[in-house]
Amino acid sequence: MKSGLRFLIAAKRCEIDELDQLGHTSELVVAVGCLVHALQRERGLSNLWLTSGGERLAVRLERQVAESREFEAQVRAQFDQLETQMHRTGARLFSRVAWVLSGLDALPSLRQRIGTPQLQATQATAAFTKLIAGLLAVVFEAADGAADPEVSKLLVAMFNFMQGKEFAGQERAFGAAALALEGDVEERRQHWQHLIESQERCFEVFAEFSDAALLEIWRASQGGSGLAELERLRRVGPAPAGRAFDPLLSQAWFDCCTRRIDAMKTVEEHLATELRERCGRKAAQARRELQRHQHLLATWAPQADDLAASPSAAVFFDDTQGEMASTAYGRQLERAVLDMMQVQSRRLQIVSAELETVRASLNERKLVERAKGLLMAHRRLSEEEAHKMLRQTAMNQGRRLVEVAESLLSMADYLSISAPPVP
Amino acid sequence: MKSGLRFLIAAKRCEIDELDQLGHTSELVVAVGCLVHALQRERGLSNLWLTSGGERLAVRLERQVAESREFEAQVRAQFDQLETQMHRTGARLFSRVAWVLSGLDALPSLRQRIGTPQLQATQATAAFTKLIAGLLAVVFEAADGAADPEVSKLLVAMFNFMQGKEFAGQERAFGAAALALEGDVEERRQHWQHLIESQERCFEVFAEFSDAALLEIWRASQGGSGLAELERLRRVGPAPAGRAFDPLLSQAWFDCCTRRIDAMKTVEEHLATELRERCGRKAAQARRELQRHQHLLATWAPQADDLAASPSAAVFFDDTQGEMASTAYGRQLERAVLDMMQVQSRRLQIVSAELETVRASLNERKLVERAKGLLMAHRRLSEEEAHKMLRQTAMNQGRRLVEVAESLLSMADYLSISAPPVP
Repeated sequence: MKSGLRFLIAAKRCEIDELDQLGHTSELVVAVGCLVHALQRERGLSNLWLTSGGERLAVRLERQVAESREFEAQVRAQFDQLETQMHRTGARLFSRVAWVLSGLDALPSLRQRIGTPQLQATQATAAFTKLIAGLLAVVFEAADGAADPEVSKLLVAMFNFMQGKEFAGQERAFGAAALALEGDVEERRQHWQHLIESQERCFEVFAEFSDAALLEIWRASQGGSGLAELERLRRVGPAPAGRAFDPLLSQAWFDCCTRRIDAMKTVEEHLATELRERCGRKAAQARRELQRHQHLLATWAPQADDLAASPSAAVFFDDTQGEMASTAYGRQLERAVLDMMQVQSRRLQIVSAELETVRASLNERKLVERAKGLLMAHRRLSEEEAHKMLRQTAMNQGRRLVEVAESLLSMADYLSISAPPVP
Repeated sequence: MKSGLRFLIAAKRCEIDELDQLGHTSELVVAVGCLVHALQRERGLSNLWLTSGGERLAVRLERQVAESREFEAQVRAQFDQLETQMHRTGARLFSRVAWVLSGLDALPSLRQRIGTPQLQATQATAAFTKLIAGLLAVVFEAADGAADPEVSKLLVAMFNFMQGKEFAGQERAFGAAALALEGDVEERRQHWQHLIESQERCFEVFAEFSDAALLEIWRASQGGSGLAELERLRRVGPAPAGRAFDPLLSQAWFDCCTRRIDAMKTVEEHLATELRERCGRKAAQARRELQRHQHLLATWAPQADDLAASPSAAVFFDDTQGEMASTAYGRQLERAVLDMMQVQSRRLQIVSAELETVRASLNERKLVERAKGLLMAHRRLSEEEAHKMLRQTAMNQGRRLVEVAESLLSMADYLSISAPPVP
């Protein structure tokens, strides 16, 4: 019985260890959120600067770069911490971090090209978008790897919120260009619509996994006159051929979007606070339970010899409280420990079922990722090309991205197209 | 770029760590398999001894107890090892181990009651069955927690094989009693049929996750005249009221089943060998890949300054091999590392999708467990009573256990019956 109690304690220690790790991961997610926000602004300003130039923008951009650098340093520090606490971190998270770090290393050179300028606005936007996608993939893995359903829920809400905000950021950059430049109006309108719908879907999932208080903050942040202005500018839409270039319209769009995205950042900060608190609360609770278990183990010791001399078939093997169950104190204590074990075991099973439910909400993204991988391998496309192909198919067929991904994956089985062999 | 490479290596180290842990877990599973086999024989012999007695059986039983003790010591040693390597072990596995240890501690007292004898055959059988179920739950958690799909597949095959073998063991014990004792024939016939069908379903899943060579061994082990004799005795079936007690029939049944179950043990040993080999092979392969990564990191160093001076926006941010991609050696190396990162990242995603597929095969058991938990909480039943209730419902409605469990769980949502609150 005493050895069983020791493992009951080991199970509790595991839970605490996982919750502590989740606390660190959550800090990482929060830091990534700040860096993403800074990079989104830098992307927007770079874009504006490359399309319309001007001294005033150059100064704003410079200031923004300084802020991005600050948050980058914080994220790098969190990555380094992650490496020392690697025992509970999964290979997938590390693999995402490796990719992001390569992108961060290349940032100074990207900025130099924007400043010179050697890049077009669309190229600069695509570069920032790629890096931000890598950062969001880190957040995704953190949410997918979380071992506690309550915290996992918040991380899923956080990921979807950040992803929705990123689509809003892409809309800001795209709209600024679309309002300013001539081109194929229909194609732009479609892409714009895609960005709006993608945002909405993300915020729906966020809403599903948030509590009432947070939703209230979210709704309040998005109401007011700002939304009307946004919708007006969305309606004005891509410049039809021949319309004179209007830098004021493009600037108005950028500022309107920026106010909206900055308001999103405050929601994200509330989410971050809640995430921190929940991690702390769960870990503290698990530590209290551990203390109770340890106390029991300590008070157990004096009776150990007595119990070792006549261990307890009656208590373990009998379910009925009937004839064979003894009422001796030692036996009652044994019964209590066995009950505790069953409660813990059942609780862990429920936790695991809840986790599966929360994680299922991440499946959509996984399907799209796998479909992209298939296209990359089978048609030798880059990631961007594969994504564009999926998106284009979705637009042409009037279906959702995930539906196209699902069709592709099911066809793959049928046509024996396969993902690259696992080396 | 160098920092990215460091995390690529960290990801590989994680994989190796997980594979090493899987190696230990597999050893534990193999040891549990041996103990389960010994306890199954001890259960059968205890049962025979309690129903028919006799000096010869007492000696056989005593010998069997000695063997069980030996394997128990090995399993306990593996449990202790697990505690020192806890960093990758999940709370659920520990929680199962805690339960099993309580049962093992109570074994001597159970044996003493059997020897005296203070127990009826059915009580003794139920006690062993409970302990074996706990041991199989350990194997289940090991399979469910495995992080490598190939090893996970084998563990799923192993778990299902062991569970099927356990149903065969229960059939041996039940049949021996059913052939010897009078009682409600129809109820016994139903329970017997349930044990046969449960076996078959387990062996089907085992077959699904095994390779051709193993299946050949399995089929060969179950063919021959033994099977015919088994089917004949199954047909003779539960003793109708008034049939004279025939100890020879009961002994023939026991020996026939024992030969079959012993043959199963050789299949299990083949599975164990394959499990060990696969763990070793995967870990060795991951170590070779790690060496390649490390070599790259080492040869990277001389150029680090050069690359730090002009990091590589072109390589990270451009997908086209076009205008901006340089052909300089350093750039090519960077490209190679980025490709490596993408390959690793894609592979980990595929691995994770494969793992999910393998784990889905364990869902059936999880559903039944959750339904049991619901019944236990809602109707204040013991685990045995809850299981019996589910099984009885399945029999009455001519449905599979998992179907009844699913109905119950879906009704629970509807009727707002809920599992015990997570404390």
